[in-house]
Amino acid sequence: MHADIIIEGGTAITMIDGQEPVRNARVFIADGRIVDIREADQKDTYLDCSAEIVDAKETIIIPGLVNAHTHAAMTLFRGFADDMPLKEWLFNRIFPAEIRFLSTETVYWGSLLGCLEMIASGTTCFVDGYFFQDETVRAVNKSGLRALIAQGVIDFPAPGVDDPKENLRVAREFIQKWYGYSELIMPGIFCHSPITCSEKTLSGAKEISYEFDLPMQMHLSETLEEVNDIVGKTKKRPVHYLDQLGLIDESLIAAHAIYLDDSEIECLGEKGVKVVHVPESNMKLCSGVGRIPEMIKRGVTVALGTDGCCSNNNLDLLCEMDTAAKLAKVFDRNPTSLNAREVLKMATIGGATVLGIENEIGTLERGKKADIITLDVHTPHLCPIYDPLSAIVYAANGGDVKDVIVNGKILMKNREFTTLDSAEIMEKVNAISRIITKS
Amino acid sequence: MHADIIIEGGTAITMIDGQEPVRNARVFIADGRIVDIREADQKDTYLDCSAEIVDAKETIIIPGLVNAHTHAAMTLFRGFADDMPLKEWLFNRIFPAEIRFLSTETVYWGSLLGCLEMIASGTTCFVDGYFFQDETVRAVNKSGLRALIAQGVIDFPAPGVDDPKENLRVAREFIQKWYGYSELIMPGIFCHSPITCSEKTLSGAKEISYEFDLPMQMHLSETLEEVNDIVGKTKKRPVHYLDQLGLIDESLIAAHAIYLDDSEIECLGEKGVKVVHVPESNMKLCSGVGRIPEMIKRGVTVALGTDGCCSNNNLDLLCEMDTAAKLAKVFDRNPTSLNAREVLKMATIGGATVLGIENEIGTLERGKKADIITLDVHTPHLCPIYDPLSAIVYAANGGDVKDVIVNGKILMKNREFTTLDSAEIMEKVNAISRIITKS
Repeated sequence: MHADIIIEGGTAITMIDGQEPVRNARVFIADGRIVDIREADQKDTYLDCSAEIVDAKETIIIPGLVNAHTHAAMTLFRGFADDMPLKEWLFNRIFPAEIRFLSTETVYWGSLLGCLEMIASGTTCFVDGYFFQDETVRAVNKSGLRALIAQGVIDFPAPGVDDPKENLRVAREFIQKWYGYSELIMPGIFCHSPITCSEKTLSGAKEISYEFDLPMQMHLSETLEEVNDIVGKTKKRPVHYLDQLGLIDESLIAAHAIYLDDSEIECLGEKGVKVVHVPESNMKLCSGVGRIPEMIKRGVTVALGTDGCCSNNNLDLLCEMDTAAKLAKVFDRNPTSLNAREVLKMATIGGATVLGIENEIGTLERGKKADIITLDVHTPHLCPIYDPLSAIVYAANGGDVKDVIVNGKILMKNREFTTLDSAEIMEKVNAISRIITKS
Repeated sequence: MHADIIIEGGTAITMIDGQEPVRNARVFIADGRIVDIREADQKDTYLDCSAEIVDAKETIIIPGLVNAHTHAAMTLFRGFADDMPLKEWLFNRIFPAEIRFLSTETVYWGSLLGCLEMIASGTTCFVDGYFFQDETVRAVNKSGLRALIAQGVIDFPAPGVDDPKENLRVAREFIQKWYGYSELIMPGIFCHSPITCSEKTLSGAKEISYEFDLPMQMHLSETLEEVNDIVGKTKKRPVHYLDQLGLIDESLIAAHAIYLDDSEIECLGEKGVKVVHVPESNMKLCSGVGRIPEMIKRGVTVALGTDGCCSNNNLDLLCEMDTAAKLAKVFDRNPTSLNAREVLKMATIGGATVLGIENEIGTLERGKKADIITLDVHTPHLCPIYDPLSAIVYAANGGDVKDVIVNGKILMKNREFTTLDSAEIMEKVNAISRIITKS
């Protein structure tokens, strides 16, 4: 039996419920998939000398992380505006900067930097919503990452979509263009929010997502103000308003989902909506804290995201897991809330479920796609290790990621990128940021 | 004019109020102190070819970070118990493990690992409270770090202090032994808390701190339960109870300080008590969230700490700053709360003030001790940089630290340790952890 890559050594955390860590593991990868995963001291009939060896001694091996809500090209605006209220930040700083500086070129380089940062910090798959998304497709394609890339829809003039009346047409054409293009790239539609999109836009977007049988993304109940606006206008809370429009179902990916009452959580659970928790962005913009443990209890699938890195300000899911676990504890007044395993599930199989590909990625399992990362644990802040899950969630950060494999292809080996030229990308984005600063 | 070390290139953030970043900086260090700091393109009459050059191009140069509350040797128990209520965690897991496994040997190696981790993540000075503290002195001395090292005092049998009646004597002897021993090491006394120490112990500890004119550390109002206990017993809130005992003054370093009412905050401000905010530990143990912006407004000096890394679970102050800034925003419902500069002040000059050495360290300033770190910004997650303070607080982590200088001595250069043998330390602590696991 043939293997293209063998990950050799290390402790594998499969994230399959009930399965113990595999110590001194050997992971066999062929044709993009995991062929086998077992202890190295068993007799190795599969050993194939032509396979590329990934030396994983003194590492933890886990499924690649899924960043289930981000806007990759917003790396362009990392640190551009901080310590401001969301509305002022968005409407006075970010939206005007986007209108002025986003172009096919800047989105391409910003997305490449996002991909580079995600690879460097162990993300193997992400869910993106932005503008000029042809360029994000190009960047992701070059990077070798897996992604759901959605064209933004908003009822204002937007980057690349001057006339809001054209927003659905642009999104539909984007999907049509890239549908089936690559097994790693899924196009999609991203309605900005029920506040910034009319009923007609929301319903139209939903029709497009039905037509192509693709998920639809949306920001949901991110601020109290937004909820009050919708209740004022529609006499319904946001989830019920969207339900009436036919948007609340399994294909909806709802990011933030902070201000939900019990009836809304119940509705999300019953109808199979996917929620993406973005704790650091919610904290930084002072939006609030989602009722995540309650949602999980009610059967809602919850994944983890960083949001765009200008409200975070990085794309590091390892740090995001730590924050998610700690924030839930102090906010719920329950120190057992969101334990290490639950949070790592959110960032792996939870994210896979949001994309509807939980049978393909999200655990280390024979037959699944080989989306795998290793974390170097031979480092002071990860010593000693009583529990690998604790080390990952509570002590590690993105810089500990050593190797990254997506779809059976190595994207980073011993912290060297194989698909992207990091110096070139940083130079290009620095040049763009100098233009932004000067103007 | 002579220089031992010249830091060459990079953007220096002096942390002196009102001072702009120094671009393309040159920092001259001689005899342990900063001799000059200025732009490199000015005429360099001081240039001394025998000086060691620290290449700081593409870095940010800042004052070394001060971890104002930790228990370094608790690295031994990193990840030993997570996701549990504080009381159960402390009394059923941590205290019994400490009694059983702490010894001169384990505290020495645990402290060395703590020092190693702190150097690796940019901490140049820390405030420690624990047991077998002679060993922590030895470890710190070997590491080259600056520290206030305090002997723990608690009215239970404690590691190395079987008979609680001896606790003050042991602490006094510890101070006497190390007082004046090294300019980098200040001995001290650490009363565990007003709940675990009697009035007599608290007053006795205070007398010792007066005798040697040294700060006294204490955990203060970490849990609501503790506050209720004290109110029940004394009819006074903890700060007023301690004030009555004469403990509330400039020499008190109060860690946690979560459950304070307005009158207590006012009292701390008026009497010059130093507060140490430890947000990640407070979140993880579900203790609560300190009213930090309110304290700062009332004139309380606030510094930042990680706490012991078994309730965190690392000693990374760069990540702690990020959490402190974000937590304040969402908890206060004010997105302008604790901005990047305020948080970096807490972790530098704030910490220096807690130790009473704000005239010696905490800013990059001519004549001050050379406690300086550089952060490598040529990395995807720190690109681009519109505002260096934002990059430090919201995007960086400990792994970005490149060089560490304490008292004019290089402890880490380009991520190579100069004083400690990292492989040996990790091997020793791993061996100790295997004994703990097996028993």
